[in-house]
Amino acid sequence: MIDLRSDTFTKPTEAMRKAMYEAEVGDDVYGEDPTMNRLRDMGIEITGKEDALIVSSGCMGNLIPHMIKGGRGKEVLCAASSHIVCHEIGAIVSLSGTLPVIVPSDNGIMRSDDVEKNIHGYAYDMSETSMIEVENTTSGLIYPDSTLKDIKKIAENHNLWVHMDGARIFNASVETGIPVKTYASYSDDITFCLSKGLGCPAFSILASTKDFIKEAKRCRKILGGGMRQVGILAAAGIYALQHNVERLRDDHRHREEISKALSETTWADIVISSTNMIFFRSQYPIENIVEAFRKKGMLFLKDGGMGRIVLSMNVSDKDAEEAVRIIRETRVEEF
Amino acid sequence: MIDLRSDTFTKPTEAMRKAMYEAEVGDDVYGEDPTMNRLRDMGIEITGKEDALIVSSGCMGNLIPHMIKGGRGKEVLCAASSHIVCHEIGAIVSLSGTLPVIVPSDNGIMRSDDVEKNIHGYAYDMSETSMIEVENTTSGLIYPDSTLKDIKKIAENHNLWVHMDGARIFNASVETGIPVKTYASYSDDITFCLSKGLGCPAFSILASTKDFIKEAKRCRKILGGGMRQVGILAAAGIYALQHNVERLRDDHRHREEISKALSETTWADIVISSTNMIFFRSQYPIENIVEAFRKKGMLFLKDGGMGRIVLSMNVSDKDAEEAVRIIRETRVEEF
Amino acid sequence: MIDLRSDTFTKPTEAMRKAMYEAEVGDDVYGEDPTMNRLRDMGIEITGKEDALIVSSGCMGNLIPHMIKGGRGKEVLCAASSHIVCHEIGAIVSLSGTLPVIVPSDNGIMRSDDVEKNIHGYAYDMSETSMIEVENTTSGLIYPDSTLKDIKKIAENHNLWVHMDGARIFNASVETGIPVKTYASYSDDITFCLSKGLGCPAFSILASTKDFIKEAKRCRKILGGGMRQVGILAAAGIYALQHNVERLRDDHRHREEISKALSETTWADIVISSTNMIFFRSQYPIENIVEAFRKKGMLFLKDGGMGRIVLSMNVSDKDAEEAVRIIRETRVEEF
Amino acid sequence: MIDLRSDTFTKPTEAMRKAMYEAEVGDDVYGEDPTMNRLRDMGIEITGKEDALIVSSGCMGNLIPHMIKGGRGKEVLCAASSHIVCHEIGAIVSLSGTLPVIVPSDNGIMRSDDVEKNIHGYAYDMSETSMIEVENTTSGLIYPDSTLKDIKKIAENHNLWVHMDGARIFNASVETGIPVKTYASYSDDITFCLSKGLGCPAFSILASTKDFIKEAKRCRKILGGGMRQVGILAAAGIYALQHNVERLRDDHRHREEISKALSETTWADIVISSTNMIFFRSQYPIENIVEAFRKKGMLFLKDGGMGRIVLSMNVSDKDAEEAVRIIRETRVEEF
Repeated sequence: MIDLRSDTFTKPTEAMRKAMYEAEVGDDVYGEDPTMNRLRDMGIEITGKEDALIVSSGCMGNLIPHMIKGGRGKEVLCAASSHIVCHEIGAIVSLSGTLPVIVPSDNGIMRSDDVEKNIHGYAYDMSETSMIEVENTTSGLIYPDSTLKDIKKIAENHNLWVHMDGARIFNASVETGIPVKTYASYSDDITFCLSKGLGCPAFSILASTKDFIKEAKRCRKILGGGMRQVGILAAAGIYALQHNVERLRDDHRHREEISKALSETTWADIVISSTNMIFFRSQYPIENIVEAFRKKGMLFLKDGGMGRIVLSMNVSDKDAEEAVRIIRETRVEEF
Repeated sequence: MIDLRSDTFTKPTEAMRKAMYEAEVGDDVYGEDPTMNRLRDMGIEITGKEDALIVSSGCMGNLIPHMIKGGRGKEVLCAASSHIVCHEIGAIVSLSGTLPVIVPSDNGIMRSDDVEKNIHGYAYDMSETSMIEVENTTSGLIYPDSTLKDIKKIAENHNLWVHMDGARIFNASVETGIPVKTYASYSDDITFCLSKGLGCPAFSILASTKDFIKEAKRCRKILGGGMRQVGILAAAGIYALQHNVERLRDDHRHREEISKALSETTWADIVISSTNMIFFRSQYPIENIVEAFRKKGMLFLKDGGMGRIVLSMNVSDKDAEEAVRIIRETRVEEF
Repeated sequence: MIDLRSDTFTKPTEAMRKAMYEAEVGDDVYGEDPTMNRLRDMGIEITGKEDALIVSSGCMGNLIPHMIKGGRGKEVLCAASSHIVCHEIGAIVSLSGTLPVIVPSDNGIMRSDDVEKNIHGYAYDMSETSMIEVENTTSGLIYPDSTLKDIKKIAENHNLWVHMDGARIFNASVETGIPVKTYASYSDDITFCLSKGLGCPAFSILASTKDFIKEAKRCRKILGGGMRQVGILAAAGIYALQHNVERLRDDHRHREEISKALSETTWADIVISSTNMIFFRSQYPIENIVEAFRKKGMLFLKDGGMGRIVLSMNVSDKDAEEAVRIIRETRVEEF
Repeated sequence: MIDLRSDTFTKPTEAMRKAMYEAEVGDDVYGEDPTMNRLRDMGIEITGKEDALIVSSGCMGNLIPHMIKGGRGKEVLCAASSHIVCHEIGAIVSLSGTLPVIVPSDNGIMRSDDVEKNIHGYAYDMSETSMIEVENTTSGLIYPDSTLKDIKKIAENHNLWVHMDGARIFNASVETGIPVKTYASYSDDITFCLSKGLGCPAFSILASTKDFIKEAKRCRKILGGGMRQVGILAAAGIYALQHNVERLRDDHRHREEISKALSETTWADIVISSTNMIFFRSQYPIENIVEAFRKKGMLFLKDGGMGRIVLSMNVSDKDAEEAVRIIRETRVEEF
């Protein structure tokens, strides 16, 4: 089976397993896990922020900033398709009390002037904007550098906090050549995910100022996310950051190859093809297409009425080639 | 000064004051206030619901249903311009935990098929739709009867709760001739306001099933909204329901007259003119227009980049006539 | 019927009704109600605080300070019998997120050293104390002046906020001769109730710093507690503050008379007799005693396994005399 | 260093590391991790409940039941020293809205009649009891079997939910010989910890009905506790359940030996000595005692004004012997 469902399905390699096997550990709740501390330091180094915290998931990495910088009577400006609105069961609402205000966007990429137009100052009957959230990449799309710069400047002018959901920031970085540290500089806090394209079993890293991370650690504990000798998993994270970043280029190349094959069919209308993701519409029912390909050994998902293909280290050069072959040989009679 | 800012500025008339002066009262927290009980019974009668509760404000009448039928992991479908999203400081978010999901709308009027398309069932990573909110009137606009019927049917099919923010439902009712009871039948709970067009100093009524109202009473208490001998205010509400409903027609007539005058100017582009409200755009800065009219003794507000004129019992036939005169004689040089 | 159930059952007098009838009003949400503003100014004057806000109820007056100074990860130190823990449906917990930490107390009166012992500083796994709550009077009992001073000093040393639930602070003040302003100086914010002994139909006043009250106003709105032309009720509040404070002495005198009569019976064991309240235990079932007295025209309640008698302006000199007579003539065979 | 600070400091053994190294994994968010599923099945088997969920921590295992069975206007009855009140930063308050009601207890062990006396039914102004929480063991103490049975019966009579914080339930079980399944039968849900005495790097298991666990899974996700290929850690949990339960007897034996040595000193007044924990008071400052022992290579903590010694697999027979020797040779001059 060629698994193109998501980059969250990646499994640890032999070498990554070995790193976990050998990890030096301690009680991380007391700050005594040397491997967790080392991974945290890598998070600081990569983002250029003052401090960092390892959290269980991308969801937790998004929730905590809203607990700290959002809250009762506060608004976050974000895109309608953002992960915090659509895929976190409303956690930022029910656990932090922040109101998401939807800014118009082009497949999740907001324009800076639309962001600015939606800022609400203090009024007796309205929430007050306190945060802007940018998701980069979002549905595989990379935010234009200049837009991020402009949004940061707008935020500074209005004294707002910018949270970057950089779950797949490394995909953006290897594609554009812009360092993660530069992307991070366009935000006040950034979270990125180790368990997506980087192939680690779990964990995200949240980075920001020392004060923010101190409070974030408290939030992690209150959410039940404090764990003990999890240097085991951190070792996989360290390995991933050392060995699996550059290879994201392979995923992007595979995405291009598959995208090209799809574009040559009569049934796939590509909406997004960027970094490691493809979204396409079709005149045929997507569930039928998904099912036809499943029978042929190629898995992907229906998402928002579209077909969604995600590349990851689960897909080798040979798998990508095979996927292209399957796409080419598939006839619409099969849908 | 002709006050066209809002229908919330209305002051109790002599007769209404007399009703308050003479009100029989008791401790309403213990259910012993006969005038509160009588007003509650009128709320039941008017809406045709099983039970009703008098609450401090329209905000409380909107918040409580979300506390009962929304909550953690639940979504309410509503329009972007809805009062619950824009004018209640995010209370449904921070105090009830409900995620507002924005359905496309035409100035606040959603289409039933757009509502249906946005319903989310159970998914491991998404909020689940549990409520639909319709605001009737919304920015003065009346929901088409058939749309409300369709939305109610869709809600029943998906086992969803319909909350109607009927703050100005009497304006809809006198305009269409459709009884409030009929409008209420399109919802599972309805709240309407006594302190807007009806001219009462305070209070809204929330009506629904017996079970819902029992829980609503608990929510009112937890919000700090339980009060004692407030039959004083309830007496004004009873008076308002008995004497101030039919006269809303005057407000609508005044709105038509003023709207006509505006439409004949070169500077006002009417966006909404319905029931007791007018919204207009202009090629001149709205704040300048507002200021120019203020100097001439006519008050109205800027709202969402538009000029907003609201008719109420604050405006007599003579006032409306005078407003028309002022509009006609105003020259763009004054802006 | 002589109503000794609670001081919340008091009804407005003719003169108070007249004051309401004549009240000048405006839209208080916009700060335009002159009578509300005048009552607010009296609140400022009485407490000596910078600013004040009129809220619907004592519950709201207690909840709002916890929304502002408590919250996630924060603790309030208070007595087990405090109103915020026992009679507000846990609002400070569910709507503000503050953890109540129970300090040992003598019928609600905490000792300052017990307060200090329970202060928690920052720890990775514990809530942090941010507030101390004193209820004065509590079950009719007055906090010793020196205890309040000591608690305030402790709070200052630990950078904690003192909230005084002074629902019945006027009862304390007329009894001790200590001005409300002095009591208020032992707290950072104070709330007192107009609808208990003072005989107003509704409302409490919350007083503190300008910044605090600005945020409190926002909280009032978010709770749905913003109302319109409620100068009607404020007029009763002004009247109450002008005419009904000194007469609390009558309630206290009546309480002494009734308490004396009770103490001379064979069946009442007085636990608390202070200001306007009496609590007594008995070897007979309290519900039987309550019922026996009800038949004889004297109402009071069972509360926490005790009989509870509350004096208020509902009870005239003649009523008190009559109550004493009834107590004296009642035989235990009636229980 | 002999580490007697906590049983959370245990590190994975070589064999446990090997189990992790070899673990078969998948995306657990999609239920595709076979090792997580196997550990879950062991949780079901051990507790005799219908279903189980693996959660990040004991805190999460305690928080989720309060999110499901507690909430706004609901109370949980628990001991003052309970972990949910003292060591989870008030999460059950701020994230679930449940009010903790403190039941008198003997070092955390409540009596069933005290529990019953504190149950509150529905009242217009009070929270309603919906849950009872028992912590077993609590500070090392085991709940009497009959008390647990009685509490469960009381709960059934009042339609209340019993949550058992069984973080260290295996310590109770090996000591009394009562199976975990029997303990679990005294509760509606139970959580136990793999990362304390059992020596696993992380994870707790929460077990209850199918419906409850379905909702619990949603809560885990909303808290950000959903992780991916964490069969790595689950493999350690499986190993721990297979190999590290019986050896808890060693910890208890070591506790007895150390306790005996302490009881023979002139400076340690033992308050609790049970399962794997010792709490003692002293006439000397505890911090001085802690420091004196630290210098001699023996670590333990000050907790609630007492010395706290916790046995775990960190302590070998030889270590325990050595600890006894150190205690015997220590002179009060060193404090």
